[in-house]
Amino acid sequence: MKLLEQRILREGILLEGDVLKVDSFLNHQMDVELLHEMGKEFYTYFKNQNINKILTIESSGIGIAVMAAQFFGCKVVFAKKGNSSNVGNEIYSCKEKSYTRNVEYTVQVSKKYVNENDRVLILDDFLANGEALNALIDICRQANAQVIGCGIAITKTYQPGEKRIQDMGIPVYSLARIREMKNGSIEFE
Amino acid sequence: MKLLEQRILREGILLEGDVLKVDSFLNHQMDVELLHEMGKEFYTYFKNQNINKILTIESSGIGIAVMAAQFFGCKVVFAKKGNSSNVGNEIYSCKEKSYTRNVEYTVQVSKKYVNENDRVLILDDFLANGEALNALIDICRQANAQVIGCGIAITKTYQPGEKRIQDMGIPVYSLARIREMKNGSIEFE
Repeated sequence: MKLLEQRILREGILLEGDVLKVDSFLNHQMDVELLHEMGKEFYTYFKNQNINKILTIESSGIGIAVMAAQFFGCKVVFAKKGNSSNVGNEIYSCKEKSYTRNVEYTVQVSKKYVNENDRVLILDDFLANGEALNALIDICRQANAQVIGCGIAITKTYQPGEKRIQDMGIPVYSLARIREMKNGSIEFE
Repeated sequence: MKLLEQRILREGILLEGDVLKVDSFLNHQMDVELLHEMGKEFYTYFKNQNINKILTIESSGIGIAVMAAQFFGCKVVFAKKGNSSNVGNEIYSCKEKSYTRNVEYTVQVSKKYVNENDRVLILDDFLANGEALNALIDICRQANAQVIGCGIAITKTYQPGEKRIQDMGIPVYSLARIREMKNGSIEFE
């Protein structure tokens, strides 16, 4: 998606440790017009798949998920990290190791909101190692829900996550696929 | 807002400790059509105030904020809780004590995304003691940004938060104002 790639080139900041900061438009400050276009793009790609639920994970995925859901006309469920006292006892859960923050989370979804009738599109902002997506896919399997595909804003294709998900037979559609980040420059596939 | 009140009566669940669970439509599963109507309602109320930024706090405020921002045509900034390694060093921060979870957070916003030119609408899902709103208002003051008002989905008017904010001279517009929750029933103002 050219619009997103251009924005990454213009505003993205490369930091030590393979970190790409896009917090001026995606995951701290959010450019809602851009999110709208991204939601529309996910809809264009997945619209014939009878998706009836969008699953994401707090917090950065929520904006993208809500925008996309407007096009799909479906509900969003966002998984919670950690031991939220508000989720209740009847939950599906899975461990996730975040490489960015070097901590392990428990990812939780109430059993009430994902079930065997769901055709789920999983959306998130970044795909690198794929730990977060993996946890969400695991939760869908526990619920006997069908994962139709994953939609990602920014995928680092030189990391193992994209291939891991595809090897499970799940389509991954990424709006910007980064092949290399080196010496302050970003190359897309 | 009748639509929200009806939904609370139909799907809200009262738990021990003055907890109202609305996670079937607002803060775990999200009914995006309802969020859209809520965003429109906030716009109708604040549209003549030249608001150019919406500030909220992760995670439950994000969906409401993004929807409202579509109407205002402005950007959203969501404050982060805890010590996020991704925010950077140049931050405004404030302590917040959550009564629901009985923990203290640090609330953080990058200095890049709130400044003295901003006319800010603060949006959140719940107002009870007002700790989260208080932290967001404090951050706006540190940034010399002007807080035009607060928009809240559900306010418990028998708790001190609403009055605390109004006593600062900041208008609070709540879509559902709960006067009492007792014996499994909910009464609105």
